[in-house]
Amino acid sequence: MLYLVGLGLGDAKDITVKGLEAVRQCHRVYLEAYTSILTVGKEALEEFYGKELILADRETVEQEADNILKDADVSDVAFLVVGDPFGATTHSDLVLRAVKLGIPYKVIHNASIMNAVGCCGLQLYSFGETVSIVFWTDTWKPESFFDKIEKNRQNGMHTLCLLDIKVKEQSLENLMKGRKIYEPPRYMSVNQAAEQLLAIIQNRRLQGQESAITENTICVGLARVGAPDQKIASGTLEQMCTVELGGPLHSLIVTGTLHPLELEMLQLFPVAGSSFEQPACQRTT
Amino acid sequence: MLYLVGLGLGDAKDITVKGLEAVRQCHRVYLEAYTSILTVGKEALEEFYGKELILADRETVEQEADNILKDADVSDVAFLVVGDPFGATTHSDLVLRAVKLGIPYKVIHNASIMNAVGCCGLQLYSFGETVSIVFWTDTWKPESFFDKIEKNRQNGMHTLCLLDIKVKEQSLENLMKGRKIYEPPRYMSVNQAAEQLLAIIQNRRLQGQESAITENTICVGLARVGAPDQKIASGTLEQMCTVELGGPLHSLIVTGTLHPLELEMLQLFPVAGSSFEQPACQRTT
Repeated sequence: MLYLVGLGLGDAKDITVKGLEAVRQCHRVYLEAYTSILTVGKEALEEFYGKELILADRETVEQEADNILKDADVSDVAFLVVGDPFGATTHSDLVLRAVKLGIPYKVIHNASIMNAVGCCGLQLYSFGETVSIVFWTDTWKPESFFDKIEKNRQNGMHTLCLLDIKVKEQSLENLMKGRKIYEPPRYMSVNQAAEQLLAIIQNRRLQGQESAITENTICVGLARVGAPDQKIASGTLEQMCTVELGGPLHSLIVTGTLHPLELEMLQLFPVAGSSFEQPACQRTT
Repeated sequence: MLYLVGLGLGDAKDITVKGLEAVRQCHRVYLEAYTSILTVGKEALEEFYGKELILADRETVEQEADNILKDADVSDVAFLVVGDPFGATTHSDLVLRAVKLGIPYKVIHNASIMNAVGCCGLQLYSFGETVSIVFWTDTWKPESFFDKIEKNRQNGMHTLCLLDIKVKEQSLENLMKGRKIYEPPRYMSVNQAAEQLLAIIQNRRLQGQESAITENTICVGLARVGAPDQKIASGTLEQMCTVELGGPLHSLIVTGTLHPLELEMLQLFPVAGSSFEQPACQRTT
């Protein structure tokens, strides 16, 4: 049996009782480690589970999937994923491969960022398409995510923006020379995401286009959702450039039309110094 | 402290380790029992938690919220919600009330239908706005959910349809006479939801409108997601009228544009007798 086990978003104790039982009975336990991170490290998980974990980076999962599935038809193997196994990144490739090999599988669900963002008080059924905001480089500054956010907002919908993670990335030079030397991991902050969005708004303004998203659009920055030191801050997009949320992982929500109850919830988490009492659109610069 | 604890979607063991610890240390534990159900009953939960549970129906939560929060500033109270506390129905009203009373709160997240539907292989970030399909009556047949599904589909997005639940509903007669006699609980099935959608398509066709959703649109029916006897079936909307998925809770997905990997996953769960080898649009009737 292949168990796909969601770990939730906080620490070792966010695993479900069912998930913990599965992990403890498995012969091999892999920890998927390239799409997200838990605030506790591999060692804390190993100690709590009483199991040794095998770190599975992108290469392992994509190139050595057969090793992960080896003997899973006769023994139990667990594949642990931060959040839910079918959350922000789906692991359907592993499922399909297992099915082709005749290996049964079981999914043990957990919270993912896709539903846990509800903790800020915005209603999940008022979210449109989720977008990913990627790190810009000097030569590559895609804007497609902005168009999706704008479309959601025009339809009154909120947008959850998942922020880029670069783990085990090679520099262009090392990649070209085939050297397996990796850059330090990078996690996009709410500040960086907001700056990229503001740059797009500026670019378009220079071209005579006024966007549905402005400096004053109400946004929510979230950091380490589910962890004891989780932070939520609501304020304008401009305020998101300087809000201090601490370490990764961060997510950003660009709001659409706000229901009074949603607005009341967001007021529990104001950016330091901000006030929702005046609608943001009355702000004068 | 007020703990809002998500129970996940299956049985007693789908609670997180952190959630279980919170429940066991609380003086009073409420079980929210009107927006969803677990496949196991209250008794099974009580036995596993080693705690007596107080059933909180809609009236209790809306009218007696102060009783729930009583003394929560000096002792620990838990409010258990099937799925995630901020899932399909948010409990932000309870949070706001607690904050006003100076009671600290903690959220312990879990899987909700909003992210667990990913188990069918459709990618969560390709979902548009979630809709609720309500039971039609002889005199009330709203179609607003259809417009939203259609809009999502036109944008290439999938739609998760949450199906109506009627728990502790009074008949019009009993309501008018002030008699607290309740109808037996009713849970909308995928069959019923599909029939309502087909009726709307027919209505519009009679009015000369061709919808973006037809009898042949690929849909996914899901029942008891997360439970050991979970069922998933993919097929045309027409097939959803007769697919047999067993007891509640059911959900229906109307697909948008399918990625090849999504299609491959859906093929793991074909409606009996259906085949995805021919695109549904080639079907001849």
